[in-house]
Order: sequence, then structure tokens, then C-alpha cells
Amino acid sequence: MHYDHQVQVRYGETDQMGVVHHANYLLYFEEARTAFLASHGQPYGQLEKDGLALPVRKLDMRFRSPAHYEDQLRVRVAVDRITAASVRFVYEIWRDATETQIATGSTELACIDLKAEPRVPHVLPKSMRELFG
Amino acid sequence: MHYDHQVQVRYGETDQMGVVHHANYLLYFEEARTAFLASHGQPYGQLEKDGLALPVRKLDMRFRSPAHYEDQLRVRVAVDRITAASVRFVYEIWRDATETQIATGSTELACIDLKAEPRVPHVLPKSMRELFG
Amino acid sequence: MHYDHQVQVRYGETDQMGVVHHANYLLYFEEARTAFLASHGQPYGQLEKDGLALPVRKLDMRFRSPAHYEDQLRVRVAVDRITAASVRFVYEIWRDATETQIATGSTELACIDLKAEPRVPHVLPKSMRELFG
Amino acid sequence: MHYDHQVQVRYGETDQMGVVHHANYLLYFEEARTAFLASHGQPYGQLEKDGLALPVRKLDMRFRSPAHYEDQLRVRVAVDRITAASVRFVYEIWRDATETQIATGSTELACIDLKAEPRVPHVLPKSMRELFG
Repeated sequence: MHYDHQVQVRYGETDQMGVVHHANYLLYFEEARTAFLASHGQPYGQLEKDGLALPVRKLDMRFRSPAHYEDQLRVRVAVDRITAASVRFVYEIWRDATETQIATGSTELACIDLKAEPRVPHVLPKSMRELFG
Repeated sequence: MHYDHQVQVRYGETDQMGVVHHANYLLYFEEARTAFLASHGQPYGQLEKDGLALPVRKLDMRFRSPAHYEDQLRVRVAVDRITAASVRFVYEIWRDATETQIATGSTELACIDLKAEPRVPHVLPKSMRELFG
Repeated sequence: MHYDHQVQVRYGETDQMGVVHHANYLLYFEEARTAFLASHGQPYGQLEKDGLALPVRKLDMRFRSPAHYEDQLRVRVAVDRITAASVRFVYEIWRDATETQIATGSTELACIDLKAEPRVPHVLPKSMRELFG
Repeated sequence: MHYDHQVQVRYGETDQMGVVHHANYLLYFEEARTAFLASHGQPYGQLEKDGLALPVRKLDMRFRSPAHYEDQLRVRVAVDRITAASVRFVYEIWRDATETQIATGSTELACIDLKAEPRVPHVLPKSMRELFG
């Protein structure tokens, strides 16, 4: 099960090397991941309203080819691994117009209880475990 | 009464025009403004812990000359006008090494009560009104 | 003549006040403006390839109501004034679901010759002057 | 050989979880890395003026504890590995006031020739290889 999300590169996301600044791919990952969750009836905003959150605790990225301003990119996202209190998403970013792979990566998210201070782990919502388990 | 704050341009703050992207000057304004407040015993973080906030409700900027990666910039900030529940800051950004004015601008901030939903105005803390009044 | 562009608020665009950070509205303005230009056969990327650029030289914004994570926003953009070497765009951001106006603003862009250093003004492309004139 | 660089968290770098958004740590890494290079007589801006660039081709991060608005952070950066045409930096971010480790990570940068299109690898400047070799 995966999800394809479209983003178009904004001018402010480029840097003086004339390409997308590497940190901005994390925003594309995030947008794709939450669109994926929403498309399966799990809008992330609702999760926070319910007192839980999914901060990123680990990530990696590999940059294959630079993306440019106005490029139309497809972010493919899938769940790679799910435990009681964490979920790992994997990503591929493609510029389909030239069949170019731009970047790949993963983010591991921990489920936490927003009402606890300091943060404590919390089991993922049942609906999410059933969906991706 | 004004305050001079130093910032150095980060690579990720440039865009493909080879200069600082215009939106980032707002981050320099914000950093200078909060350093100014902190230097007068009014750390903004504490204000929020006390249940108040100062969202920007109005701003303008004028760009005089582009700033570049690694430029050392001086942001001069001052309070221009203060009312019971709002305060207006004015800014000048300079690259002193070349005596170049980079940008000028202003931001008007409204004091609100963070516990009210929707937002309602709240009188500014007495210490802030005394300081800038 | 105006153009309506849709954006959805990204998580990374919020700040700890729980709303969209004010600087990010400039990215929405920019995305709407360039989508507007592209929809009229004037993709901004091509302009830069032709050796011209349109840096922002002046802007203002007014924030009416905060936008939140996952909000679907409509950015209405129009050209307000055009001269031989500059063009001013005006914007309104709306959350249509609640008929709420989020922000308004304007940006004035100067046309420059990218090959000249320092920057010198350059007449706007004829096609753009005819379109908005 | 390592370098300690100080950064203070900006308001706009937080998100609605009330902590620094994970993508922004990459900006701290970048700022620390280029300050490190500059402190050893290798300002990155000069490298680009000489026609070379060091885009990030691979990175990973691990988040240990959240950082908050106004936190004073120390970014420790060191070179972990250097080859003819790439260099890998490793990072640790600490909030010294509470002796808390915030995040760790690494970025691998490839040296490229800015004048070639598409990008081709280029040997690192001799001065950099001697410094870190």
C-alpha cells in the first residue's frame, strides 16, 4: 500500500545553487505523509486534537538528482514498519516528466502523549495499527 | 531607544536569484525584536508562559539592496508606537562592511489572551508599557 | 482579471502559537503569483532563463484571522498597477469553508537584468505589459 | 578536530507541537558546518566563487529530546571521513543549560563542478583535503 502525492517546487524553496535546498524535501515528505494519512481517514490534525502526536525521531535521506524551481514532483510514500508506538514511512521523490529519481528517504515517528511533560510514548491509535499493521 | 542585533545570512536563506529570499527578512526582524525585548528584561517566551501572545497583525517591508550568503547584517529595531494593546516596531537592516542599507520595515503586534478562543485583545503587560511608553 | 490559487497549510508552516507563521504567507503569495503568471503563458522560470528577474522591492500584509494546520486556503491574486519596469500584485487569502478572510497584502516587483551587476532596472517583457496593461 | 557553534532557536523555527520543527535542525547543521569551514580559512562562499560546490548527497538525523523557542544550543561538528571528492560531517546538538542532547546526525557532501551541466564530481580543493585528511 502506497500513496502518490504531487508537489510543485516553490521559488522560495530553491537556494543559490539553483536547486531545491535539501531541508525542504522534509517538508515534501511531511506533506505527502499527512496526505496519505488523511486519504485513509486518519487526518493528523485530528490525532493532535485527541491528545496524541507523532514527532519524527529518526530520519535519513539520499539525494539522487537535483530538483528545480517549478518542477512537478511526485512523492511516493508507504509504511515500512509499524510497532505498538512507532511507525516508519519510506519515500521516493520523482520528476515524472524526465523519469528522474530525485531523492529517497525514511522517517520514523514515535507516538507520544501530548498531555505528558516530559514526553512519554503512547500506543498508536488502534485504527492506525489496523490500517498499516 | 533602539537595539542593534547581528545576524549572518544562512545558505538556506538564499534563493536561486543568489540573494536572500524576501520572506526571510521577517525572521531577521523577529529575531532582532525578541532579542531587543529580552535585553530589556521582557523575554517573549515568558510572555507566552504568562498566557499572552503578540501575533503580527500588520507589516510592511521595503528592499533597498540585496543581501548575500555569509553577509554579516545589523538589524536596528526600535518601538515606534505603543497603545494599550498593541505595539509597532520599526526596522532597518544594514550591511556595515559596505555601508549598505538592505531593507527597512515595520511590524505591528497585537497583544492577545492565549486562553481565549477565538482570539481577544488583551492589554499589554504593564512592564512593557512602562518601558516603551 | 484575477486568479484563484489553492494551498493547503503544511505542518512545518505553523509555529508554537498553533497558527501559520506570518512569514509563510509570503510563500503563498509567491506561489499564487507565479501560478497566475504561468496560467497566462508567462512562466516565471522562463523569464529568468531569458535573463530577467522580478525581485520584490516592496510589500505589505495585514493579518485578519489566523490560519491553521490542514486549512484549505484560496489565494486570490490580481495585478493592481503596472509600469514600464515594475508590477504590483494584490492578494486576498480566504478560508472558504468558514467564509473567513485570513490576510490581505501586496507585493511590488521590479524588473531587473540578471546579467548586470549591480542590478539595473529593465523594461518588463512586452507580453507581460500587454497582458496586464 | 571539532568545532562548537552556538545558535539560538527562532520563534519561526518552532511548530504547533511547541518545539523546533525537525527540518530546521538541518539549517543548524549547515550554519555550524560553514562556520567550521570559515574558522579554518575555508569560507564556503569562496568555494562557490571558485566554481565548486558541496551539495548534500546523503544525511541522517536522530532526535533525542525536543528543543524549544529561545533555547541556546551548541552544535558540535567534526569531519568524520574525507575522500577525493566527498566529505562527511557529523553533528551533535546540545542544550548545555540542562546538559541535554537534542539531536545527532551526519551529512555527506559531494564536491561538484558548478560549470558542468549536468553535475559532475570534482576533486575537493587541496587545502580542504590537507586540513581534514
